[in-house]
Amino acid sequence: MATAAPANRQKLRVGLIPGDGIGHEVIPAARAALEALGSDIPKPEFVDLKAGFELFTRAGEALPEETVEALKECDCALFGAVSSPIRKVTGYSSPIVALRKQLDLYANVRPVLSVAASPEEKPDVDLIVVRENTECLYVKQESLTTGEHGKEARAIRLITERASHRIGKMAFEIALGRPRKQVTIIHKSNVLAITDGLFRETVRAIPRTVGDGRYDGIKIEEQIVDSAVYRLFREPQIYDVMVAPNLYGDIISDAAAALVGSLGLVPSVNAGDSFVMGEPVHGSAPDIAGHNIANPLAAIRSAALMLRHLGYPVAAGKIDRAVDEVIREGQILTPDLGGTSKTTDVLDAVIKQM
Amino acid sequence: MATAAPANRQKLRVGLIPGDGIGHEVIPAARAALEALGSDIPKPEFVDLKAGFELFTRAGEALPEETVEALKECDCALFGAVSSPIRKVTGYSSPIVALRKQLDLYANVRPVLSVAASPEEKPDVDLIVVRENTECLYVKQESLTTGEHGKEARAIRLITERASHRIGKMAFEIALGRPRKQVTIIHKSNVLAITDGLFRETVRAIPRTVGDGRYDGIKIEEQIVDSAVYRLFREPQIYDVMVAPNLYGDIISDAAAALVGSLGLVPSVNAGDSFVMGEPVHGSAPDIAGHNIANPLAAIRSAALMLRHLGYPVAAGKIDRAVDEVIREGQILTPDLGGTSKTTDVLDAVIKQM
Ligand SMILES: CC(C)[C@H](C(=O)O)[C@@H](O)C(=O)O
Ligand SMILES: CC(C)[C@H](C(=O)O)[C@@H](O)C(=O)O
Repeated sequence: MATAAPANRQKLRVGLIPGDGIGHEVIPAARAALEALGSDIPKPEFVDLKAGFELFTRAGEALPEETVEALKECDCALFGAVSSPIRKVTGYSSPIVALRKQLDLYANVRPVLSVAASPEEKPDVDLIVVRENTECLYVKQESLTTGEHGKEARAIRLITERASHRIGKMAFEIALGRPRKQVTIIHKSNVLAITDGLFRETVRAIPRTVGDGRYDGIKIEEQIVDSAVYRLFREPQIYDVMVAPNLYGDIISDAAAALVGSLGLVPSVNAGDSFVMGEPVHGSAPDIAGHNIANPLAAIRSAALMLRHLGYPVAAGKIDRAVDEVIREGQILTPDLGGTSKTTDVLDAVIKQM
Repeated sequence: MATAAPANRQKLRVGLIPGDGIGHEVIPAARAALEALGSDIPKPEFVDLKAGFELFTRAGEALPEETVEALKECDCALFGAVSSPIRKVTGYSSPIVALRKQLDLYANVRPVLSVAASPEEKPDVDLIVVRENTECLYVKQESLTTGEHGKEARAIRLITERASHRIGKMAFEIALGRPRKQVTIIHKSNVLAITDGLFRETVRAIPRTVGDGRYDGIKIEEQIVDSAVYRLFREPQIYDVMVAPNLYGDIISDAAAALVGSLGLVPSVNAGDSFVMGEPVHGSAPDIAGHNIANPLAAIRSAALMLRHLGYPVAAGKIDRAVDEVIREGQILTPDLGGTSKTTDVLDAVIKQM
């Protein structure tokens, strides 16, 4: 899905939104990895931006208008993580969910890749979850009434042809760039015949509707979401690109992360047609925040993935290979991977490998 | 959740609904296991009943009124599996989803248990998914409109206080009978503050609202659904009883099944206040149907679980121990478990162990 980098780009303006918790540790690491690339990319210029639950409790807003406006002046961004309160907090709404919608970052692309014993070997797990990022139950249209038997809550699940089409296209484009060229549609249309039926049929129709034969070589598979998760654990190698509505994609990408040993390894980008924002799949991990032990690799890989989407595959490859080498060597790892190293030690090891 | 068996029950009327595919092979096996119990239970009387997609294509209805009416005259039932067409088929609606609602079988109880090397050892995985069975997106209130950018489909997700309360109570009752006495609430209330918020708060409130101190010893935990699945794979031992809204429960129980090696091992019951229906968690597996190679153990265990809910723990234990022994010996297993035996061989082995 890489677009070619504009040749005349002199600088790369990167918005940085650490958010909450370990976001404040892993985003600086990702920034340092970008800086270490030197002339492989246009000189990065970083813009520090605020969002998150900490900010909300301090300043009364989770996603200031200035942050959104400033992002519109950036070429790309890196987002850390936000703490989502489990109880309803009046006035608070998750800034990451809001940002995805406000910047129309309709695709959440989450590659899950294990590291083989040597660079020549094939990894056991090598799949990409392409998650729709703007609708499904995430439209947050919820209501509460009181009926005969007490409270009744309802939420709307929205699936549109437009959103299904563009996320499907994104999945097909990504599949085109991969050796297996296979797209598995995840749905539950045996129960949700209309909503998931629309998702499924829209994605299936893309090779016909796009019509230039571009996707003729792509193999389309499908799986019901429950059995998709089952099979993900039993035989992950059956998947190449998985395309899913928002909530299924959320669950599946966490499930896939379990296969590669740690959520602390899995990167993502939130991508739209004109903006891309890297974001590690992990959360803000308040329990370990502030101890310099958070795994920075997911954030660093997210920076690489962001570069790939911006059209800098060589620079991205440099970061990815360095990360793989650090994992392969297995000497300098954070506790989530069984190591005893610090966040900053892992960052240094990556930079040394670059 | 066992109720005491009525002392005056002379016969046990068991409705049998094989459904589609391998349902026709595993339900007869479960029947045979019940018959082999002899005087441990009231003499079973079997009532053959029809439902399923095959029936729909032949006779135009998936769940005949006679089947539902006949079930109301039974003490309990065993359901095999149904093939759910992925494409919308006009007039067809999943009979299992309909049965759960029509008989108000509001709880889907799915124990996932690995078999330890010896009966004295603790199993690695020992958890129970208690899935709400009547609402959430399964209310199937879907609509389709055409907007500015094409088709738009909407589904309602319904969560009520009443259903959340009764499923929560079921989870607490089950937890009471287990050594760890822990209930983990699965939700996504960081996004669905109102619907999942209602589920979460209603379940959390049960020890207070029930009020007789009955649940005071129970430990309540909670997990966001995506990270719940992640942790299920990484550290299944953190779970004891998991209580979840319908769709999350559907996904989580398949995910948990992957941990014990095969969906062909995981039983369930659909339980209401006055009826219980056993059902293996697996599907109709049309690819292997008719070859006498389907794993009958999930159906046999479902019969045992049904007996437990009816108040016959001794008889249930007899079946369960026999199944465990067959798995432990590892000699007579179907292909899903790496064996080469037939469905009927596995059944014979279980009966021999009883
Ligand atoms: C924090 C939460 C709102 C978010 C989501 O559900 O999208 C997270 O789980 C993710 O996957 O990015
Ligand atoms: C067949 C399907 C409708 C069903 C469900 O989603 O409930 C199945 O997956 C199950 O778990 O029993």
